[in-house]
Amino acid sequence: MRYQLFYWPGIQGRGEFVRLALEDAGAAYDDVARGKGGMDRMLAMMKGGRDKRPPFAPPFLKAGPRVIAQSANILFYLGPRLKLSPRAEADRLWLHQLQLTVTDFVKEIHDTHHPLGGELYYEDAKPEAKRFTGNFLAERAPKYLGYFETVLKKSGGPYALGRKVSYLDLSLFQLIEGLRYAFPKAMARIERKIPGVVGVHGRVAKRPRIKAYLASARRIAFNESGVFRHYPELDA
Amino acid sequence: MRYQLFYWPGIQGRGEFVRLALEDAGAAYDDVARGKGGMDRMLAMMKGGRDKRPPFAPPFLKAGPRVIAQSANILFYLGPRLKLSPRAEADRLWLHQLQLTVTDFVKEIHDTHHPLGGELYYEDAKPEAKRFTGNFLAERAPKYLGYFETVLKKSGGPYALGRKVSYLDLSLFQLIEGLRYAFPKAMARIERKIPGVVGVHGRVAKRPRIKAYLASARRIAFNESGVFRHYPELDA
Repeated sequence: MRYQLFYWPGIQGRGEFVRLALEDAGAAYDDVARGKGGMDRMLAMMKGGRDKRPPFAPPFLKAGPRVIAQSANILFYLGPRLKLSPRAEADRLWLHQLQLTVTDFVKEIHDTHHPLGGELYYEDAKPEAKRFTGNFLAERAPKYLGYFETVLKKSGGPYALGRKVSYLDLSLFQLIEGLRYAFPKAMARIERKIPGVVGVHGRVAKRPRIKAYLASARRIAFNESGVFRHYPELDA
Repeated sequence: MRYQLFYWPGIQGRGEFVRLALEDAGAAYDDVARGKGGMDRMLAMMKGGRDKRPPFAPPFLKAGPRVIAQSANILFYLGPRLKLSPRAEADRLWLHQLQLTVTDFVKEIHDTHHPLGGELYYEDAKPEAKRFTGNFLAERAPKYLGYFETVLKKSGGPYALGRKVSYLDLSLFQLIEGLRYAFPKAMARIERKIPGVVGVHGRVAKRPRIKAYLASARRIAFNESGVFRHYPELDA
């Protein structure tokens, strides 16, 4: 199966959580909207047209005739197929539950620069972003990351589900990588309390296919259009 | 199977999407935190204790030995068991994808009164709430509801998946009911463009078990501690 991934070109965003899974598994895929005519095709699919099941927003994955949207849902689908999740229903749902907590966290990370809605420019709500981010870095980020630290401890590690890596570990890598880019000062402080999660980040970064991917042109650099943005005035 | 639902007492919140499914199916369940000692039990489960798989936040469902969190994930689990979802994997994932879009919508609804974070009092960020809500009512709510209207049209109706009701239809009922409570003026305008979704609301409200539930003391009234809050100054 050759997959087709549809996501906004130019940013890692929510598509990156899917990309990391495809890359780690060595799956064959096209990053459609980054290719010629791909953006038009993506927008056409969002409008629905003949498709009975149009996605609300990118990322979405075309797998044969099926179109699957919502990053956590895509990973739930891909997990067993890419050997990045267990097969038993109870374990898959637990992994998915954790990934949905990542989704919630990512939304709050996004809101650090866009607390009043994604349609505004960052510059139009800077004091509000500062206020939101203050609470985010003091309370929310430590709470989410502390939760994943607890999950790791309870699993026995070194990965979130125990001995075997899963797509959630790839997402934890991305969270640490992105938060370090966005809030280097705050993260230096926060990371002291989450050695397990930081350990997952290190182990994932060394996985051969991930390492090759990160060094390739396929990995888009962090920038100030994505979810993780570095605005020094927000970092405390 | 007698289920145990854990959610904050006193509000409908995100727990209500699960409650509606349990009620519509006539499932046996306890609303644990609303009973004696239940709140202590819920908080203890969130801390983890002996449980290897603690939830991040309510709602969560205890089904035998399993604890399942995240409302969309709970519904995904319950769907086939309560006969509120199809059985084929592709159909179940499509339904779940739609429910995850409901989850995203609910988060934005929550943010109308708490754009700068859930820890503040509404009164501490009123101008920001007004600004967020202006965009929400002009752009976001019509976009989400318009999307579900499209899904309904494409399915052939009268329900989101076609002829058979699913847990998503119960959630669409709750969205309309809650948005009408919170923003009666804006909804009078918005509803003109989503007759299919409004039709689902009406059909769900007439389902015998839902009707009985809504008239019972088990249904908590909307109030200004929940997700859907009526602040007249926000309604345009």
